[in-house]
Amino acid sequence: MIFLKAYLTKKRKLVDAALHGFLEKEKTKPGVIHKAMRYSVFAGGKRLRPVLCLAGAEVCGGNSARVMPTACALELIHTYSLIHDDLPAMDDDDFRRGRPTSHKVFGEGMAVLAGDALLTFGFELIAGNARIKGVSSESVVRVLEVVAKGIGTLGMVGGQVADMEASGKKHSARELGFIHEHKTGSLITASLVSGAMLVGAAPSQVKALENYGENIGLAFQIVDDVLDIVGDKKLLGKRGSDQDNNKLTFPAVYGLELSKKKAQAAVAKAKKALGVFGERAKVLSALADYMVERQN
Amino acid sequence: MIFLKAYLTKKRKLVDAALHGFLEKEKTKPGVIHKAMRYSVFAGGKRLRPVLCLAGAEVCGGNSARVMPTACALELIHTYSLIHDDLPAMDDDDFRRGRPTSHKVFGEGMAVLAGDALLTFGFELIAGNARIKGVSSESVVRVLEVVAKGIGTLGMVGGQVADMEASGKKHSARELGFIHEHKTGSLITASLVSGAMLVGAAPSQVKALENYGENIGLAFQIVDDVLDIVGDKKLLGKRGSDQDNNKLTFPAVYGLELSKKKAQAAVAKAKKALGVFGERAKVLSALADYMVERQN
Repeated sequence: MIFLKAYLTKKRKLVDAALHGFLEKEKTKPGVIHKAMRYSVFAGGKRLRPVLCLAGAEVCGGNSARVMPTACALELIHTYSLIHDDLPAMDDDDFRRGRPTSHKVFGEGMAVLAGDALLTFGFELIAGNARIKGVSSESVVRVLEVVAKGIGTLGMVGGQVADMEASGKKHSARELGFIHEHKTGSLITASLVSGAMLVGAAPSQVKALENYGENIGLAFQIVDDVLDIVGDKKLLGKRGSDQDNNKLTFPAVYGLELSKKKAQAAVAKAKKALGVFGERAKVLSALADYMVERQN
Repeated sequence: MIFLKAYLTKKRKLVDAALHGFLEKEKTKPGVIHKAMRYSVFAGGKRLRPVLCLAGAEVCGGNSARVMPTACALELIHTYSLIHDDLPAMDDDDFRRGRPTSHKVFGEGMAVLAGDALLTFGFELIAGNARIKGVSSESVVRVLEVVAKGIGTLGMVGGQVADMEASGKKHSARELGFIHEHKTGSLITASLVSGAMLVGAAPSQVKALENYGENIGLAFQIVDDVLDIVGDKKLLGKRGSDQDNNKLTFPAVYGLELSKKKAQAAVAKAKKALGVFGERAKVLSALADYMVERQN
């Protein structure tokens, strides 16, 4: 796993530098919105979605530098979803990653707008990826559709809606599957597929990444739920709030032990899907293992 | 103006039918979000932005049927901005067009998500416009950038931020110009330009439409402010709330009479910009006049 750690550190640095360059300066008028956007984007995120986008390009034999605008866009879109999910009218979380959430610092109205602006700028960055040499406008249009579907009402937003509706109600395993497949899995899969499509991947490669993405997305969410209960609050940067909110979670439905087993089974399936890529799949394979081993 | 009325009626019907077809059915899971989206989209809007997109294509000699997905997308994006603007944390409006606002019917959390989903689906529809014969992926990518810029922090969202910051403060003419140019003008201009670009307009045509759009956008906003004070509340479907909210408006800065004169001057400039189009500009010219004559 040492090579994975080095890989993640390297990619995160590249992504952070690119994000700094892409995002508007804080002094650009109106300053407060640009400040609010940067506050949440640079709040210590793992940059998992950008890394998946870059790795998705590389595993198909492409140059990941070509997909950097889209990789950054996926982080902005992820950040938008966190800001809106944390709002008092939704999950009502005051802290994330150890810092006060956007609405606590900038007020609710500005937090809504910061999320809106990050989502919008995300789409702008993806469209702008067409200006990079070797990237076709056709592939950019396809990626825009894949990402929009992945985060729309049949994807991420649909998962958040189902999550809100399930809170406080009787737990059902089927509902739980729907929520997490949509709320987390869709954007993770879209991230992998975007990187692949922009470097001209074959349909069989895209298919394999979809399969891999769905499974690591599932593992990721189960581990998130488990960490909310057993994790180190300091490492997580937040108190576990799922139980307080009576949230529909994997441990609530299956118990802790079976939840962990389900995460391991998903990781095994994800790694199997990487078969078509041969040796190139080393990073993604290690990333799948990391999904269940992470502590925050 | 009779021909304009017939033109608007015809186009609105086409746009409404297309919107019905594009939007997910209410019964599609999770139903509540699709219900909330349709509730606000079919709330009696004037469909001004779609009409401008279609007319923008036609004035450049293009077939407006080809830009219908983008025309509808612009209405979805406009609707998203209204839902979020009406939220308690922003303008806190309980009624719009005579009906309770989204958050009054579906709750605040769902209203935030309905707006998010409309914005996202708007971008999906624009990307999907590339599948229509005769529309190039290159032009779709350019339109996506134009729209995203027009509604981002240097456009519509920036205007909303400045508007929130100006509420209750000392009025300044310069600030007022910034707010309205961004809050309303940017999306109106983007609508015209989008239609033109998708049918392969020449740069000089795009430039003329930008000039026209900025001026009718200004006229539109001044008249909005004026109607908030002198308009028929029944026709408007809302009570005038700008004065209650101590909003920075044109009448507040210039008084009613000078505001009306400024609107007329902007309309004259807009019509002048249409010179390059000759006879084809008949609709857009009449639309400019309509901007100052409208009662709601």
